[in-house]
Amino acid sequence: MKESTKNSEWRHRLHEVIYEADTKAGKVFDILLFFLIILSVILVMLESVKEIDQNHHGLLLTLEWIVTIFFTFEYIARIITVKKPFKYIFSFYGIIDFLSTIPLYISYILAGSQVLLAVRAFRLLRIFRILKLVKFIGEASQLKEALKASRAKIAVFIYVVLILSVIMGTMMYLIEDDEAGFTSIPRSIYWTIVTLTTVGYGDIAPQTNLGQLFATIIMIMGYGIIAVPTGIVTVEYSKYGSKGKRKKTENLIHTNTQVCETCTAEGHRDNAKHCYNCGDELL
Amino acid sequence: MKESTKNSEWRHRLHEVIYEADTKAGKVFDILLFFLIILSVILVMLESVKEIDQNHHGLLLTLEWIVTIFFTFEYIARIITVKKPFKYIFSFYGIIDFLSTIPLYISYILAGSQVLLAVRAFRLLRIFRILKLVKFIGEASQLKEALKASRAKIAVFIYVVLILSVIMGTMMYLIEDDEAGFTSIPRSIYWTIVTLTTVGYGDIAPQTNLGQLFATIIMIMGYGIIAVPTGIVTVEYSKYGSKGKRKKTENLIHTNTQVCETCTAEGHRDNAKHCYNCGDELL
Amino acid sequence: MKESTKNSEWRHRLHEVIYEADTKAGKVFDILLFFLIILSVILVMLESVKEIDQNHHGLLLTLEWIVTIFFTFEYIARIITVKKPFKYIFSFYGIIDFLSTIPLYISYILAGSQVLLAVRAFRLLRIFRILKLVKFIGEASQLKEALKASRAKIAVFIYVVLILSVIMGTMMYLIEDDEAGFTSIPRSIYWTIVTLTTVGYGDIAPQTNLGQLFATIIMIMGYGIIAVPTGIVTVEYSKYGSKGKRKKTENLIHTNTQVCETCTAEGHRDNAKHCYNCGDELL
Amino acid sequence: MKESTKNSEWRHRLHEVIYEADTKAGKVFDILLFFLIILSVILVMLESVKEIDQNHHGLLLTLEWIVTIFFTFEYIARIITVKKPFKYIFSFYGIIDFLSTIPLYISYILAGSQVLLAVRAFRLLRIFRILKLVKFIGEASQLKEALKASRAKIAVFIYVVLILSVIMGTMMYLIEDDEAGFTSIPRSIYWTIVTLTTVGYGDIAPQTNLGQLFATIIMIMGYGIIAVPTGIVTVEYSKYGSKGKRKKTENLIHTNTQVCETCTAEGHRDNAKHCYNCGDELL
Repeated sequence: MKESTKNSEWRHRLHEVIYEADTKAGKVFDILLFFLIILSVILVMLESVKEIDQNHHGLLLTLEWIVTIFFTFEYIARIITVKKPFKYIFSFYGIIDFLSTIPLYISYILAGSQVLLAVRAFRLLRIFRILKLVKFIGEASQLKEALKASRAKIAVFIYVVLILSVIMGTMMYLIEDDEAGFTSIPRSIYWTIVTLTTVGYGDIAPQTNLGQLFATIIMIMGYGIIAVPTGIVTVEYSKYGSKGKRKKTENLIHTNTQVCETCTAEGHRDNAKHCYNCGDELL
Repeated sequence: MKESTKNSEWRHRLHEVIYEADTKAGKVFDILLFFLIILSVILVMLESVKEIDQNHHGLLLTLEWIVTIFFTFEYIARIITVKKPFKYIFSFYGIIDFLSTIPLYISYILAGSQVLLAVRAFRLLRIFRILKLVKFIGEASQLKEALKASRAKIAVFIYVVLILSVIMGTMMYLIEDDEAGFTSIPRSIYWTIVTLTTVGYGDIAPQTNLGQLFATIIMIMGYGIIAVPTGIVTVEYSKYGSKGKRKKTENLIHTNTQVCETCTAEGHRDNAKHCYNCGDELL
Repeated sequence: MKESTKNSEWRHRLHEVIYEADTKAGKVFDILLFFLIILSVILVMLESVKEIDQNHHGLLLTLEWIVTIFFTFEYIARIITVKKPFKYIFSFYGIIDFLSTIPLYISYILAGSQVLLAVRAFRLLRIFRILKLVKFIGEASQLKEALKASRAKIAVFIYVVLILSVIMGTMMYLIEDDEAGFTSIPRSIYWTIVTLTTVGYGDIAPQTNLGQLFATIIMIMGYGIIAVPTGIVTVEYSKYGSKGKRKKTENLIHTNTQVCETCTAEGHRDNAKHCYNCGDELL
Repeated sequence: MKESTKNSEWRHRLHEVIYEADTKAGKVFDILLFFLIILSVILVMLESVKEIDQNHHGLLLTLEWIVTIFFTFEYIARIITVKKPFKYIFSFYGIIDFLSTIPLYISYILAGSQVLLAVRAFRLLRIFRILKLVKFIGEASQLKEALKASRAKIAVFIYVVLILSVIMGTMMYLIEDDEAGFTSIPRSIYWTIVTLTTVGYGDIAPQTNLGQLFATIIMIMGYGIIAVPTGIVTVEYSKYGSKGKRKKTENLIHTNTQVCETCTAEGHRDNAKHCYNCGDELL
């Protein structure tokens, strides 16, 4: 039994290091993980640049191996220290962690590097894991509340923008010729959105007088329409930013970085003793 | 007389299915209609893409026939179940419904496909019919009130933007040469609006130093001017978004989807028993 | 003396027609003037389009003559009906009115059409004369107050944007080569403003990695900086848009369209009996 | 001893002229310095334009000598009049002043004009010195407070925008071909930021249908996301712009332009008698 307790304690300490950020070792681990994730993302980027890949292939591969080995140990440690490993393995982050680990192993089995690159790009999603570190989390929380509150209104706004784009894109297709780039209705709609959002690549541009007149109307609409989401977010945010409500949102901000050992649930209340999800004790 | 009552009851039930969304059959019909309208719009889009039209012409035609037949039956049913059919036929939606139905029939009589495409594009307007389904209608209502309140101010804003564009466009025409793309005053005004709204295609761009200096002024103006509609909408919207006013707007939101059988008026009060427009009973 | 009174009365009535909009004849005159100014502006535009000028030169010239003759009579009438004609002649609008009238006469004396076009473009400024007609004047007034209040802050903002543009433009000149379009510092600054204001023509674009990284920073800055004027105008406008202040601004809105016969001062109080400027009676 | 007092007084008066703006001579000096700094910046700009440099090389060099000599005397005077010269020499502005003075001297020793240009560009930073003159300083102060308050939230916003750009840029690299310009992931990320910030150069643009669909999503996101910084700045600024807080910020605005003779600290309170930094008397 003593053996078992020792084992449990060892596992518990490892759990605290990997999943939490309130001990010193936990913070060091999180910062190390942060830099390795950033490194792994930069490696994917650099490998896509032909000249760099050709000149420094060896270095990139070495660094890739370092990242992969660290990720492998981390993945195994995460499985071991969690009480219900299968729950972790098939959770969102469990799958992301797995996909971040395997690409290099697979590359020795399969050849299609393009597919592997796509898999490696999933590593980016691991970045969200590290938001724990970010001290700005309270600020983000407040913003998130405001965005959540204005979600429905922004959906209506995007719906109207899309309908407008379809109608005006179709009209531009009827007005403009193929030579100007308006070869099909979907392409005309693409141009309309490029114009309405004031991006304006210029790869497709109206050539006829009527087309340019029409484009002018779309531009001025787009220029004015942008006021709508801005108005929505500003008003909703001012509600959450005002003193009365701020107290309420501050309660919503969880500075507790503990993660349940049983079900990996996050975001516990500051003085929580039990997991709000599965009821197990938080250690 | 019993015959007549039966007939009337059958018509009344069909009316409820087609025009309203508060019975189960009505909801199913609305969802079906929604998908067929979306399908009909997508068909118009796909047919404009040359490769798709050539490779899948048969499939597109079959789907077009399905949509057309459904729309035909729906149009006839709408005429039958309304008490005053002519009022419906010559109403805005009546004409849209008619134009959405006929293109395929006409294509067997006339040849000019381009004109037919234009007619088919009217189907897009049918999308507005289905807004009934959208649960966000309350949100849209609130936004609409804010936009309606800021209408006059935005009109003044657009008026000023247009005068500025005409003046600055004319000046750019005098400054820049034909080679840079400033071949006429209307074209220079087009460029000015492209620049002022920060779209910036780049198909026309100033080449001389003076022209570039002047363009810089226009850009900074455009960059600053955008603050005006944003300010207007934000302030007006914050009025309608505040608690005191919200109650008032909530009264304006009609969740009643009933449509008068006599005059096809919509937007009745929640507990309305009589049409606010013609006074006939709502069933 | 009777003769003189008659003369004076006739002049007074003509003054009311030309300068004011509160009699029926005055309104008709204002609307006619509005359309002729718009027509004169459109004529300048159309004449700049080569094809239209070649094909319809006769029609354009005829319409130009109609406008010129009307403007000539109007100019003479304005001089006659004002008590101090020289004050009008050398006033801002007096000079604009004169410049709007003469181009066609001069074209028979001088040849340089380009210069004449520039003079004719001044006609656009006459548009401001007709703002009298616009019912939105109250709305514009409110906006103007808000913009006036935020003037100093927007000046600071533009000052900072310009300094940033100069610094970053110089850095881009050092980073990028001539081939990418960064041939001189002023041109690099032009590019920086094009980028910072999110216009983005694409005639000049960074080619090197460092240049693109730097451009990215400028873009994100520009994307964020736009929040500043928007915030300023929104806050200032919300002050003038709130109920308490609205009353105050409504007092500032002059719906009185009378113009003093002596000094041509505008904007008298609603029940004003004497000109606020020269003290003469308003008739 | 009398000699020493005389010397001290002479130094003190010079200090007031150079460092402060509340005497007449001080104001004249500041305005002269302002124009010479602007001139020195314009000289750097003009010299980079090949044609101007070739045609007017002599004039530019003469003006450059005038600026350099003035800056040299000013730099020496600043060192003499300060009690602790080394503190000034190694302060931020001390280094900038030194770098603004030396380029012309060095050009007679070294040859690499490109490096010298970079050094001369530092002169731009001297512009900040003259902000003292600007009467808008109060306005800027208020803005600065609002921006400082929204700093953390804007950092979160930029962090999210960057993560989104990395993820979407990688996806575009997988979707689009090299021919469309998406040659590497960093370049795809560059394109994503160009699109997300609605700059839209058009040097790189998606060619495939899937790529264009994806670009559309990025554009609409960018169009909506801009509402976030706008909302943040507006709300924060409205707090500092409201009456209650304004009083507080007005206290923060220092209209005192005195500079401590000992430690060159600025921003003393209006009636300050002693330097808040080193405690020496302000004269």
